[in-house]
Amino acid sequence: MKRTVYFGAGWFTPKQELAYDKAMHALKNNLSVDLVHSYVPLEHQYKGIRVDLNPEYLHDLEWSNGTFNGDILGIKSTDVALFIYVPTEEDIGCGVELGYAKAINKTIIVAIPDEEWGEPINLMSFGAADSFIKLSELNKYDFTKPEYKFYEGEVY
Amino acid sequence: MKRTVYFGAGWFTPKQELAYDKAMHALKNNLSVDLVHSYVPLEHQYKGIRVDLNPEYLHDLEWSNGTFNGDILGIKSTDVALFIYVPTEEDIGCGVELGYAKAINKTIIVAIPDEEWGEPINLMSFGAADSFIKLSELNKYDFTKPEYKFYEGEVY
Amino acid sequence: MKRTVYFGAGWFTPKQELAYDKAMHALKNNLSVDLVHSYVPLEHQYKGIRVDLNPEYLHDLEWSNGTFNGDILGIKSTDVALFIYVPTEEDIGCGVELGYAKAINKTIIVAIPDEEWGEPINLMSFGAADSFIKLSELNKYDFTKPEYKFYEGEVY
Amino acid sequence: MKRTVYFGAGWFTPKQELAYDKAMHALKNNLSVDLVHSYVPLEHQYKGIRVDLNPEYLHDLEWSNGTFNGDILGIKSTDVALFIYVPTEEDIGCGVELGYAKAINKTIIVAIPDEEWGEPINLMSFGAADSFIKLSELNKYDFTKPEYKFYEGEVY
Amino acid sequence: MKRTVYFGAGWFTPKQELAYDKAMHALKNNLSVDLVHSYVPLEHQYKGIRVDLNPEYLHDLEWSNGTFNGDILGIKSTDVALFIYVPTEEDIGCGVELGYAKAINKTIIVAIPDEEWGEPINLMSFGAADSFIKLSELNKYDFTKPEYKFYEGEVY
Amino acid sequence: MKRTVYFGAGWFTPKQELAYDKAMHALKNNLSVDLVHSYVPLEHQYKGIRVDLNPEYLHDLEWSNGTFNGDILGIKSTDVALFIYVPTEEDIGCGVELGYAKAINKTIIVAIPDEEWGEPINLMSFGAADSFIKLSELNKYDFTKPEYKFYEGEVY
Repeated sequence: MKRTVYFGAGWFTPKQELAYDKAMHALKNNLSVDLVHSYVPLEHQYKGIRVDLNPEYLHDLEWSNGTFNGDILGIKSTDVALFIYVPTEEDIGCGVELGYAKAINKTIIVAIPDEEWGEPINLMSFGAADSFIKLSELNKYDFTKPEYKFYEGEVY
Repeated sequence: MKRTVYFGAGWFTPKQELAYDKAMHALKNNLSVDLVHSYVPLEHQYKGIRVDLNPEYLHDLEWSNGTFNGDILGIKSTDVALFIYVPTEEDIGCGVELGYAKAINKTIIVAIPDEEWGEPINLMSFGAADSFIKLSELNKYDFTKPEYKFYEGEVY
Repeated sequence: MKRTVYFGAGWFTPKQELAYDKAMHALKNNLSVDLVHSYVPLEHQYKGIRVDLNPEYLHDLEWSNGTFNGDILGIKSTDVALFIYVPTEEDIGCGVELGYAKAINKTIIVAIPDEEWGEPINLMSFGAADSFIKLSELNKYDFTKPEYKFYEGEVY
Repeated sequence: MKRTVYFGAGWFTPKQELAYDKAMHALKNNLSVDLVHSYVPLEHQYKGIRVDLNPEYLHDLEWSNGTFNGDILGIKSTDVALFIYVPTEEDIGCGVELGYAKAINKTIIVAIPDEEWGEPINLMSFGAADSFIKLSELNKYDFTKPEYKFYEGEVY
Repeated sequence: MKRTVYFGAGWFTPKQELAYDKAMHALKNNLSVDLVHSYVPLEHQYKGIRVDLNPEYLHDLEWSNGTFNGDILGIKSTDVALFIYVPTEEDIGCGVELGYAKAINKTIIVAIPDEEWGEPINLMSFGAADSFIKLSELNKYDFTKPEYKFYEGEVY
Repeated sequence: MKRTVYFGAGWFTPKQELAYDKAMHALKNNLSVDLVHSYVPLEHQYKGIRVDLNPEYLHDLEWSNGTFNGDILGIKSTDVALFIYVPTEEDIGCGVELGYAKAINKTIIVAIPDEEWGEPINLMSFGAADSFIKLSELNKYDFTKPEYKFYEGEVY
């Protein structure tokens, strides 16, 4: 038995990119995750267009509606909403996805880079998640047996 | 007929504080808003304790659970979720609240400071909101007659 | 105390148009309805464009997304979802709205033209609604005191 | 890995019946669908009674409540809500199911007979679905990897 | 500004009946409650039939479905779900309503008879409610300004 | 194909404990249930602390919030909400869970001890469940093919 995940993560700063890559690597080795059928937003930009590489789409309503609807589809069609979360560079996109996933009653796991474990996080992220783990635990975390666990660090 | 609002806003940077104050001032003059029965999170910190002024509560689970549950109560017990949104300093707490409000089918209005109107905002905020207005329009905006309207600026 | 309604109705056949007009007339006289703040989809076509009069918009994704999102906003921002329902000419648009309103736990009232009262209706409409009334009762129906009531006619 | 589907389809006109049979045949050959554990409403009429063959049940509240609740159970207990959708003969029952499935955040796929691909469909069906495919693609469509896709035809 | 309430309460033991009557009396004097438009289940038994006085309906599916659907309508069509809750004689019907109200994001207030304040209550009721008050506070409680507040007594 | 279940049951009276043990034994033999990945609340008390054996936690907000959130996680992360339900000793905790599971559209099965089959149950439990079975049927019940079925006993 494996679980599919929605891979929520920012990719807008070096720290976020580093955490993103580490997390993706860990998931590939995680035996409880069905990565092939998981949903990675960057691989589902509408019609394959990445707006960061094609800035002319920044104003395109077809692209933005299609990509937004795709991300929502990703959250609702997978088993677990996973977030790669950097406390010192919180990503608002992950915030919206966290709140949405909470309200539609998805299981929510938040992975935090080890070097930032304990750093303050926003109160709303604290309350929306079901469990917090360190990024170094991600490769072995059992997604088929989630347990509720509060964040051990600070909340602001 | 008036509407109650959930007042979603960051208060962590000077820009956010400025927008916060302007918005609060505008709401006091808005005839379509019942401000007395609206929910302003800063006025509902658990047991009246503001964690920024009382940092010893940063680790207190009673405080953090109570305040998070209070904010959720604020969203569900009011008519409209309003967000004061600074594109260049997006607040992740507002992000979670936006996603939650979207998923429980609340009406969502996002007000953006005039000087930042058109600046890129996160795709997920774009898709979660029902209408975007300029902060200068907030004092006259009719909350009893919301219209769907896409953001006119960029989306990243 | 008055209630706002979402005015769900087809306008694609003479029978539907007749029922539409009768219903609108009745609502104007209904003392329990706040018609000014109710949501009538035909009055909220995106940017004021009616696609039946402007067929070049039939393929326009901005128009169709904007109008769809507007109708969803109408359902979620009003107190009661009202449907003008012609059993012999059921409208699929009302069907989608009925199902959506049911799932988000809105109060749902279905008004049926007197001359078609008792005619078979689809099983899913039967189950989604909270109460069925005759169109001739609409002008006096008390929207502030809804009662659960099964349809008395046939179901197919 | 396979997905279970809710098989939403009308069976009230020759065109609908033809599409129904083609779709069922395609699903039997679709390797991504677990048809044995999918929910086909016609096979779950309350106590095995089909009201079209037993018209004395048209007024029976036990039958109608039981069958409606069964269909809702079908939608909520399966992975994907699939609709066989004939644009020129839209079925209101599918409409209610579409709206319900949308609001409870199910993945929604709409299959349209090839010869009607591009024909106008109701705006609300357009907005409720996650992806539109041709009926001829149904036997190979990968239900384990849904992608968001707008309808390419007209919307009214 | 007043709020409508769903009046959740058992009426199966002398203690429950006593609390029921006291609560109803208090609500009549509460200036923040619109009692006329509130929903009191005992006044909405299907077709006015009370099954405790008409035991022949204990097996009647029309009656039981109609009454259940009416109670759900009561929860969804009012502003606040209020429960009169006797810790030593907890009522399972209120339990189901509490859970339902929580999941559809209603504001939930639980009033406990003064003489039982602090007595252990079930963990799930503890977590579902937004605020706990004493029955003696009910006549002055401001339903237009709910605050989140944990139960001060024991939880089992 | 197997299904995971949330194991809802009281453990506060000898009758409830007996039913609890019989049910757990039956599930171990049920080929359609993946018991290893199911959620049994007693095995998930926060930090492994059972409040009945450690009464000093009766007032501990961290324990009570953590355990409540864990039970909600159990309901949302499993396929079916199963309740072991003793009509003569209904458990309010199961009531809240039933209502919650109903509102978030989970499949709900209620198993009743054979010797109490037909005894009156609360109307709200009647309406929230999708199917009622006897406890003696639990070891062979096919959780992968739920059918809607009304309770055959009395409702009060």
